[in-house]
This record gives sequence, C-alpha cells and structure tokens, in this order.
Amino acid sequence: MAQPSRLDNVISLAKRRGFVFPCGEIYGGTRSAWDYGPLGVELKENIKRQWWRNVVASRDDIVGLDSSVILPPKVWEASGHIGAFVDPLVECLSCHKRYREDHLLEEFEEKKGRAPEGGLAEVACANCGNRGQWTEPKMFNGLLKTHLGVTEDESGLHYLRPETAQGIFVNFENVQRTSRMKVPFGIGQIGKSFRNEITPGNFIFRTREFEQMEMEFFVKPGSDEEWHQYWIDARTDWYTELGINRDNLRHFEHPAEKLSHYSKRTVDIEYRFGFTGSEWGELEGVANRTDFDLSTHSQHSGKDLSYLDPATNERYTPYVIEPAAGLTRSLMAFLVEAYDEDEAPNTKGGVDKRTVLHLDPRLAPVKAAVLPLSKSEELMPTASALAKELRGIWNVDLDVTQAIGKRYRRQDEIGTPYCITVDFDTKDDQAVTIRDRDTMKQERVALDQVQSYLAARLIGA
Amino acid sequence: MAQPSRLDNVISLAKRRGFVFPCGEIYGGTRSAWDYGPLGVELKENIKRQWWRNVVASRDDIVGLDSSVILPPKVWEASGHIGAFVDPLVECLSCHKRYREDHLLEEFEEKKGRAPEGGLAEVACANCGNRGQWTEPKMFNGLLKTHLGVTEDESGLHYLRPETAQGIFVNFENVQRTSRMKVPFGIGQIGKSFRNEITPGNFIFRTREFEQMEMEFFVKPGSDEEWHQYWIDARTDWYTELGINRDNLRHFEHPAEKLSHYSKRTVDIEYRFGFTGSEWGELEGVANRTDFDLSTHSQHSGKDLSYLDPATNERYTPYVIEPAAGLTRSLMAFLVEAYDEDEAPNTKGGVDKRTVLHLDPRLAPVKAAVLPLSKSEELMPTASALAKELRGIWNVDLDVTQAIGKRYRRQDEIGTPYCITVDFDTKDDQAVTIRDRDTMKQERVALDQVQSYLAARLIGA
Repeated sequence: MAQPSRLDNVISLAKRRGFVFPCGEIYGGTRSAWDYGPLGVELKENIKRQWWRNVVASRDDIVGLDSSVILPPKVWEASGHIGAFVDPLVECLSCHKRYREDHLLEEFEEKKGRAPEGGLAEVACANCGNRGQWTEPKMFNGLLKTHLGVTEDESGLHYLRPETAQGIFVNFENVQRTSRMKVPFGIGQIGKSFRNEITPGNFIFRTREFEQMEMEFFVKPGSDEEWHQYWIDARTDWYTELGINRDNLRHFEHPAEKLSHYSKRTVDIEYRFGFTGSEWGELEGVANRTDFDLSTHSQHSGKDLSYLDPATNERYTPYVIEPAAGLTRSLMAFLVEAYDEDEAPNTKGGVDKRTVLHLDPRLAPVKAAVLPLSKSEELMPTASALAKELRGIWNVDLDVTQAIGKRYRRQDEIGTPYCITVDFDTKDDQAVTIRDRDTMKQERVALDQVQSYLAARLIGA
Repeated sequence: MAQPSRLDNVISLAKRRGFVFPCGEIYGGTRSAWDYGPLGVELKENIKRQWWRNVVASRDDIVGLDSSVILPPKVWEASGHIGAFVDPLVECLSCHKRYREDHLLEEFEEKKGRAPEGGLAEVACANCGNRGQWTEPKMFNGLLKTHLGVTEDESGLHYLRPETAQGIFVNFENVQRTSRMKVPFGIGQIGKSFRNEITPGNFIFRTREFEQMEMEFFVKPGSDEEWHQYWIDARTDWYTELGINRDNLRHFEHPAEKLSHYSKRTVDIEYRFGFTGSEWGELEGVANRTDFDLSTHSQHSGKDLSYLDPATNERYTPYVIEPAAGLTRSLMAFLVEAYDEDEAPNTKGGVDKRTVLHLDPRLAPVKAAVLPLSKSEELMPTASALAKELRGIWNVDLDVTQAIGKRYRRQDEIGTPYCITVDFDTKDDQAVTIRDRDTMKQERVALDQVQSYLAARLIGA
C-alpha cells in the first residue's frame, strides 16, 4: 500500500481535529463546499484579520467594503461574465466523468513537461483510464443562477457573484466620494463567492462556494506597471512573513495569448500543495486589469466613473491592479506548510513521535492551553482562574483529561504555541511552567506574569 | 412638509458618510440588499467581534463554526423549510402591489390597538389607498433556489440557506466529538442567509440577503426552560451593555397558537426603530426549539444524534435553546440609538449645531482621528508619525483638510470617540490635545502617552 502523502496527512488531521468537515456530511455531503469546525473557523478568522490589517487597516491609502452576493444582473453583462465566464466541458465517452478540457491539458503538460501534441487524443481519463475518448468540448457558464421575487420568469433572474471584485467597481464612485480618497487608492473586501465548478476537488482547493480576499487598487494610467510589480512583491511577502517558505511559492506569468479579456498582465502566486498530477496550485492572482472595469461600467450604467485629479485638474479613468486571494486556499497552504512530524521527549526519558503544526502564533487557532497536572481541588481553581483571565484576550483552552504527555501531543497537533502547566509546586511558588511548541523548552513563569509573557510573544495576534 | 424623522436622519447620514450604499446603485439597485461602505464594514465587523467574544470566545462552554450557504437539499426537507417555510402572499387588486398578509394584519393591529375584525376587508393598501380589495392569499415559499452541476434538471436543485442554524444541527455530532464538549454546550456561527422576501424594505431591516449571528445551545431536557430564560436575559444584557437604552427594547412573547412548528416558547427581543406604522422591529428571536432539530435530522439522515451523558450514562436527545440575532438589524439599531443632534462650542465663542453618534467606543468604526492644525511642515511629520503608530493597533483617521471645527463635526458625525489635535505648541511641549466626543472636554497628553491614554479608554475594542 502506498504511504499517505503529506497532503493526505494534513487532510486527515483537519477532519479528525475539527478544522474542516464535509458540508452536510450526515446527508452524504454536497461535494461543493466544506464546513469549518471550531478550530477551522478560528484559523480562518485569523487569516482574514492578518490580511485586513496588512492590506486595509494599517494603510492610509486603502479602505474596506462589504458588498452583496447578489448584484443587479446588468453588472455581469457589463463585466463580461454572462458572455465570457465559460469553461470548456468534456466528458469521457467510456465512464461519463466530466472534466474541464483546459485542466486536462494543463495536467498533462505539468506531468510530461510538454503539451500533448495530439490534444485530448493523448490524454487518459483519470477515472477509468480510457485514453483519448472524449466528447467535443462544450462551453459551460460558471455563474450560479437564482430567482428573486414572486415570479419565476426571466424578470427575476439573478446570479450569485463569482468574484467580489465587481461589487467594488460598481461602488468606486460612492467610496471615493464619501471617503474622500485620492488616486492612487484601494478598496479591499473579504467575502463569499460562488462558481459552478465542473470538477470540485482537491479538498478545500476547488469548491463551488468559497471565500476571497480581494483588493482593487486604482492608479493613474502609466503608473500601472510599477504598481502591479509592487503588489506582486507585497502579496508574496505577506505569505512568507506568515510562515510560508519562499521555495514553496512560485510566480506563474500568464502567457500573453491566454490573458483574460480585461488583463494586460497577470501573475499568479502559486503554492506547492503536492497534489497528485500537478503539485502546484494557485493561491492568488495579481492582475493589471487596465481601465477595463471602470470603462465598461461607465458605458453600461451611464454613470461617469472617470476621476478628476485635484492636483493636476486632469480627468482620466483609473487603471486597476487587483491582488485576488483565495482565503480557503491560503488556509490550506498554511496547514500544509505548518505540518510536521518529529520527536518529543516523553516522561519516561525516551522520545515519542509527535505531529505538530508550526503555525505562526498569529494564525494559531488556540494561543495557549492551560493544563493542570491533576483534576484535584489543589490545582483546578488556579487553572480555571488563569484560563478565564487569558480567555478575556485570546482563544485559550483548558484541557484537563488524560496524561500530560497526551495533552501536549493534542495541543502540538493543532499548533497551540504555548502550553501552561499548573503543577504541585504552583501553590508554593505561585508560578507555572510554560512550554514552547517549537523548541519544546520550558520556562518557569510567575502566575501574575503569564499574561505579559504571552502578550510579548503574541504581538499582532 | 413633514419634518424628517430620526430614522430618516440616520438613513440619510448612513448614505452620506459611506456606512451603507444601495446595492448596485449605478445600475438602479436590486431592492434586495445593501452594500456596506468603509465605515459600515468597520462597524459591522466590530459588532461581530463583540458578539463572538461575548457568546463564543470568552466562554468555555461554547465553540464556533462556519458552515456552508448551500447544504444538501435533504437538510431543508428534514427541517421543514421546503414544506413549511411559506408566507401568505396577497396582491392589491387595484395597484397590484404585493404584501405579506400577516404583515398587513399585524400593522393594522399595531396602529389601531385591535385586530381587524373583518380581516383584510378592513385593511387599506399603503401604496394606492384602496381598501379591502385583495386577492386570495397564496402560500409562497421563501427559499431561494439554485442549480449545482452541469445539468439544470431537478438533480441539481439546491437552496440558499434561509438561516445558519441548520448548518449547526447537521454538524452537532462532528463538533461535539472533535471538541469533546459535554452537554450543556453551544455552537455559535455568524454568516449570510438568504430569503426571498415578498416586500423587502425599511432600509436594511428587511432584505433578501442578510447576516445572522446564531447560537444553538444544547441542554438536557428538563433544564430547557431555565436555560431559555438565561439566554433571553443574557442577550438582552448584551444590547444594553453596548449602549441600547433598556426602554427602547421590549420582549415579545409569541402567542402559543402562533409558535413555529419546532418551538415550545419563543421570545423576540424588539427595538424601537420608529418605523412608520409599527415602530418596533425584531432584533433577535430566542427560541426553545425542543429536540425537534436533532430528532428530525436523526430520522431523515439515519445518523443517531442522541447524546450519551458520561456522568450519568443516560442517553437522550438534547433540547436546543437558540438566540438568533440579525447582524444587520442590530447595526441599524446601534446607529438609531447613537444618533443625536446637540450643540458644540465653536472657535468664535458661540455654539454650532452638531450631529453626533454616541456609539460605544468598541463599536465606533474609527477609534481616533489625528488632526494637525495646519498642513505645514512644522506639524505634518508629527501628525503622520502619530497616526501611523496608532494605526498599528486601531482604525485611525488622519484628517488634514478644512478648519478644525469642521473636522470635529465630521468625526462627531461618524462617532469617533477621540480627536487628537497636533498644534503649534506640540513641538515645544511634545504634547497634543485629546478631545472626548461626548463630553467635548479636552486634555493635554504627552505624545509618548497617547497610545496608553487611548488603550485605557478603548478596552475590548
């Protein structure tokens, strides 16, 4: 039997410990989405908070927005989604499994290092192995439809947004005016989007319901190429500063002939997920969208979305630089990157195998765990009071069951940076032992210093 | 002409200052939803954070979850939404405007203090004034439909969730097991829901797309009534502790004959919004859902969702107490409550009229504004450095244009608790003046003490 891959181990840990559950599992699931359990929702919120702080709150040139999932249908006519948001769908003639043709061709190329000369005729079905037996590609629109209002005719037809970006463009003038922003400036947004993916898969990597962290940065035409490079670099740094090894990131430059209709240049930031087939996967696309968006919405809505530069009195339609990140994809990348198996000393003088998530403390779902050595009346009140004090500030566990070694393993496995042991000396010396997840070094810290000890090590968390 | 009401003033302020914009305004809007601008998204996130901290993070008996919008359709069969999530729709025979029959009857009763004896025959159309001319009520299902997958037949039919609660129930066993929680315990969740409302309206009060903060608290049968009262009280306190006057809240006890199919008792927490017609509106429903949810999902899914009490070895299906709050409704209530018009001293020794939002500092979208008295080289570097320092911790404005009085008015109007003026003495005494939004008192504070001055006053923000 094949060894489980690192990715398999991460997925198994995520399900076992309540990071991620299959959506609607007791009813057989939907294959379209995943639910985030108690640890997953904390990790996800921590990633959002870091993004928001880095991209929006800490900067004086970027503000936030939260626009709706269901926009007027004309937005999607103008953006090109109704016409151009299509994928080529093919079906295996033998087992009837459906694929995106472009994915099949890309995976072939990734594996063999060359494009298939004969096109799909060279490509085998991953499901049944049959080679080159495919239907003609049929264009398939990825917008999810719904109907608003009482009647179910065309007048009520609406779409669930496939990206949050358009909600930013249609609010460009509202935000610029009420916030009195001057170009260059940006608008950031985090929210759910929906795409009718033909083949959801690879755990939480490709789902029909997902979350994005998008920012549209409006610049003067001519300064767009420089700003584009700025954001490619800044967004890459964000991942490495939160713990992703630069060697596991790469930039994929979209070939000129394959650029989207709105793009002058697009660079994807990819992570080495270790998928079967193609091991790299897109985390974020950084696109120079030119003035396509504001121009097309000006034309279709009749509202002038050009900008009058108050310094030069020049009027122009800003170009847009867009770093568009997949929140749930980055969550998966942070988990894969943090996953490790090593050895830890046990109480018998030997070593135990341990699984550990070396998550950046800012991302760790639980910041500290309070572990009384026993459930006795001697230790519990101190442990409970300490947990309660810390819980006012951070997400903190109080874990009282099973041997201390087991509890360390349990906290290591979910990436808790600090374990705080209340022991039988605590009553005398009014101190506890704090253990570092990564170095496994232990320090004796006075009870009344625990909060400041953690605060100094959890900056920005 | 009638004076604008307090509510009209709040709505106008919210649009003017970028709290809330009509969704897709440049395309004429959807009437279904609203977009939250730079100030609105900060206020909304602050409300979420206070709820999460109060209901989830600070407690050892409640954990979080983030489940999907699109669940397997069988969830909605089991929950009763496909059969019972219907509203009686009537149409005015004269102008063809549609209404919910129950809303028409309730508004009549609210206004006249008695139910209309003749039913709809006594009720006039609010649009055209025609009295008693209505179609027969027709039952209308409020679930929004969509289709997943490649085919558009019934096999792909799915629904957008009308409440987040069902995502919690179907994950009950997953969460309980992986988090090792013991009854009584709760699962909290914040997220978007969708309902095909017949008559969206009253600004952000009734929309087709909205956000909820829901918590399902699982208890032993027999302790349910006590826990129900506990949560009615705790949730009421949450609003008053964040600044809502208790006199503007009331409890509405659902009459036994009108209870939902799952409920043993439901109490709504209502706020005095000051709507035309009925001035009160529901903020939150606190329901005793009995064991309906876990029982029905056990039956429909075949997965046993009963609970084995490890202390007593008793097996039972927990009862559920549900405080279900409307996030966007509470945002509206906090705005209405905070809105005030009073007078402030101006620089000429007189007084100016001012509009002010007395928001709790934890909710205020901007925590402090740095206001240099002039844009000169003497003041700007100090002001910029101070704004940058504070922005690492809070959402902070640097506002440099127009007279200082105008800038105070601008910050008062959005509820900024502290205005920090950098003046021509700052260079000499290395201090700034900090003005309190509510008392309008000013204090001279050393530059290197500004951060700790604010920290002491922004606890929990």
